[in-house]
Amino acid sequence: MNAGASQGKTDQLKDRSMADATDGADRVTIRLKPKANARAIRHGAPWVFDNELVTDRRTKKIEAGAIARLEDAARDPLGTVAVNTNSRIIARMLDRDPGAVIDRTWLAARLAAALAHRKTLFDAPFYRLIHAEADGLPGVIIDRFGDIAVIQPNAAWAEVLLDDLAAAMAQVTGVTTILKNASGRARGLEGLDDQNVVLLGRVPDAPVAVPMNGAIYMADLTGGQKTGLFFDQRPNHAFAAGLSREARVLDVFSHVGGFSLAALAAGATQAVAVDGSAPALALAEEGARQMGAEDRFTTAQGDAFEMLAALAEEDQQFDVVICDPPAFAPSRKALEPGLRAYERLARLAAPLVAPGGYLGLCSCSHAATIDKFRAASIRGIGRAGRNSQLIHTGFAGADHPMHPHLAESGYLKALFFRLLP
Amino acid sequence: MNAGASQGKTDQLKDRSMADATDGADRVTIRLKPKANARAIRHGAPWVFDNELVTDRRTKKIEAGAIARLEDAARDPLGTVAVNTNSRIIARMLDRDPGAVIDRTWLAARLAAALAHRKTLFDAPFYRLIHAEADGLPGVIIDRFGDIAVIQPNAAWAEVLLDDLAAAMAQVTGVTTILKNASGRARGLEGLDDQNVVLLGRVPDAPVAVPMNGAIYMADLTGGQKTGLFFDQRPNHAFAAGLSREARVLDVFSHVGGFSLAALAAGATQAVAVDGSAPALALAEEGARQMGAEDRFTTAQGDAFEMLAALAEEDQQFDVVICDPPAFAPSRKALEPGLRAYERLARLAAPLVAPGGYLGLCSCSHAATIDKFRAASIRGIGRAGRNSQLIHTGFAGADHPMHPHLAESGYLKALFFRLLP
Repeated sequence: MNAGASQGKTDQLKDRSMADATDGADRVTIRLKPKANARAIRHGAPWVFDNELVTDRRTKKIEAGAIARLEDAARDPLGTVAVNTNSRIIARMLDRDPGAVIDRTWLAARLAAALAHRKTLFDAPFYRLIHAEADGLPGVIIDRFGDIAVIQPNAAWAEVLLDDLAAAMAQVTGVTTILKNASGRARGLEGLDDQNVVLLGRVPDAPVAVPMNGAIYMADLTGGQKTGLFFDQRPNHAFAAGLSREARVLDVFSHVGGFSLAALAAGATQAVAVDGSAPALALAEEGARQMGAEDRFTTAQGDAFEMLAALAEEDQQFDVVICDPPAFAPSRKALEPGLRAYERLARLAAPLVAPGGYLGLCSCSHAATIDKFRAASIRGIGRAGRNSQLIHTGFAGADHPMHPHLAESGYLKALFFRLLP
Repeated sequence: MNAGASQGKTDQLKDRSMADATDGADRVTIRLKPKANARAIRHGAPWVFDNELVTDRRTKKIEAGAIARLEDAARDPLGTVAVNTNSRIIARMLDRDPGAVIDRTWLAARLAAALAHRKTLFDAPFYRLIHAEADGLPGVIIDRFGDIAVIQPNAAWAEVLLDDLAAAMAQVTGVTTILKNASGRARGLEGLDDQNVVLLGRVPDAPVAVPMNGAIYMADLTGGQKTGLFFDQRPNHAFAAGLSREARVLDVFSHVGGFSLAALAAGATQAVAVDGSAPALALAEEGARQMGAEDRFTTAQGDAFEMLAALAEEDQQFDVVICDPPAFAPSRKALEPGLRAYERLARLAAPLVAPGGYLGLCSCSHAATIDKFRAASIRGIGRAGRNSQLIHTGFAGADHPMHPHLAESGYLKALFFRLLP
C-alpha cells in the first residue's frame, strides 16, 4: 500500500508539467465535460461520475486515490477532489478550496469538527465518529469504542493517506488503538484489498463492553460483523426500550442483543433474542450477564422465519416484538423480492404480538424507501388479520449524519406499530 | 345540538322500514357503488367518499352523524359507519362489525385502549389521548391536561354522541373537567358549529401548568390556539434539548415556549423566544418563571421574518436555532408558495447559527411531503452559503398515531441540521 502511495505521488509530480496547476498545489487538474452538471457540484453535490469527466490518456493514468484539482468545462475551479478512475464515482469532493492541502492537519480539522458534534450528543465516547461524505471524509467510516477506533477506509484516497488519518485520529481523540477494518462492500468497487490491519496499539484480546441506553453490549472488534456493533440503531433501541417496561420482549435478528438488552435495561420482565449467529448470541448473553439481567434473558439460535412460525404454533405472545433483519433489498434489482420478504416477516411477526402490544420493524436496505418499506409492513400486518396504528418512524442516530445532497439515501428505517386489542 | 341528535334518531327509526337492517341494529344501510373500492375498505381504509356511495333520496335524508351499516355493491356487509352527507367523506368506519352498537360502552372501550397506550408512553397524564381515525374515533381529537380534557369533536357523529363521549371520558380516565373546543378547521366541512362548551366541571380560571421534557408549559385551555398546547412536538423538543446544554438557543415561532423552555430545562445558558403573539409569549415567560429559569429567558414579539433579518444585521449568532412556523402550505394549492416560504425561512435562519451549531426546521403542512420540505430547507441553507449535515428527522410523538391507511399523511416534520464550521 505504501509502495502504491509513493508511486501515486511520483505520477502526480510527473503529471504536473502537463496539468495547468494553480494555487501552488503540486497536483493534477481534471475537468468536467460541458454536459456535466457543474452547477450541482457548485451547490454542494459531492460526487463526480465517470461519464461526467474528461478522461483523456493523462487522466486515465492518475493513480487511485490521488488528490486533484477539479474544474468545470470553462476551467473555473470547483474544488479539491480525490480521484479513482477504477470507480464509477471517479472523483469525490474533499474541499471547496481548489488549493486545499490534504494532509494530517487537514484530516485533524475534519476529525475535530466531527468530534465536537459527538461530544454534544453523547456523554460517553462510544459512537460513529466519521460517517463518510456527511462528515467531510468521503468513503471513510470511523467507529469509536472508548480508547479504540475502527476505521473503514472505503475509498482509495483514504487508503493512500491511512497513516496520516490514523495519526490525526490519535492526536484529536486520544485513542490508543486503531484498527483498519477492510470488510466494507464498497472497497471492491474502489479496487481495494480486504486486509484488516492494526494501525496503532494492538488487537484487543477480548470483546469490548459498550454502554448504550443503559445496557451493556459486548463488541467483538475483530471477529464480528462490520465493526462489531451497530451504533446506528441507538435511538430506535431507546424508543423500543420506552415501550418495554414490565413487558415480555422478542428481539428477532438480535445480533449482540441490540433491542433486547436495551429493553432489559428499561425494565422488561423477559427478553428473548433470536439470531442465526451463535457467536453473536454468546456476546448478547455476556452483555446480559454484565448487566445482572441474565435471569430475564433467553437466546435462541436458528432461522428467524422458522422460529417465528414455531413460536406462533405454540401460541406464544409478547408485549413487544422487534424484527431487525439484514438488508433484504441490498440493491435496486433485489427490491421486489426484498419487499416481499419484509411483508412476510411482518405477517409472521404480527401474530406473536399480544393485543395492544407493539411491533417494531426495521430495514437497512438503501433500495427500500420509507414509503415502500412502510407499505410492505402494513400489508404484512393486515394479512395477519391485525388492526394497527403506526406510532413512530425512526432513522439512524444523529452520529450518522447525512450529506444534504445525498439525504434521500438514508438506509436505516424503523417503524413501530401498535397492534390493537 | 341535542335537538338535532333526537331528530337524527327519529329519522333513523323511520328509515329502518326502508332499509334491510340486520343483526338487530335499528339502523339504516348504505351501499357502495360497484365502481367503489370495496376491497380497500375491507383491507382497512377508513373513509368512504361521496362519489363512492349510492346516494338515493333515502340516503340524502340521513341526518348528519347518523350511524349506518355499510355494504358493498353485492350487499355483503363491510361494517358500522358514521354518515355525513354534508361532507366529502360521506362515511367513516367506526367498527368492522356491521352490528356494533355505538354507545357509551363502545366509546369507553376505545378510550380505554387509547389510554393504555399513553400510560405506556408517559409517566404523567399530559398527552393527546385520542388522535382521530388511528385511535378508532374518526374525526375526534382529545387532549388531556391532568384532570382536564379538551375534546374536539370534528365529525358530526361525535357531536351527536358528545354527551356519551364526555361521560365515557370521565368514567375511563377520571378527569373532572371536560371542555369542548370547536375551533377545528374540519368542523366547517362537516357542517358543525364553532361554539366552545363546558361539558363537565367548570372552565379553569387560570392557565394550566403542563410538565413535559423537564420543562413547565403554561396552557391556556380556553383563550389559546387550538387546545392551548401542542403535544405533537414533544420528541422534537426533546431532541433539540439534547443539543442545547450550555448553548444559546433561538426559538422562532415559539408559541408558549415549546423549544426554548425544553432547552432551558436541559441546561441552555440562554434562550430567546420570538413569536407574533404577546399572550403566547406571556405564557412562555410564566413557564420560565415556574421553572426558575426566567433569568436565562428572553422574549421578543414581532414578525418572525423581520426579526430574523434584524438579528442577522446585528451579527447575532446562536448555538441552536429552531423555526417552528404555522403551516405555510395548508393546502395543495398553497404548496408552491408554502415551499418558497420554508426555503426563505431556512435562508434567513441559517446565518444566525454559529459555526458547528444546529438549525431545526419544522413544518406542520400536510401538503408539504417530507421530501419536498427537506429539499426546500436544504436549498435555503445552501443559499445562505452554509454547508450542512442532516442529523435527524422527527415526526409527531407516539401519542399522535397514524392510521395505517392514512400513514402517508403525517403532517408534522422536523429536520435538524448541523451547520459546519
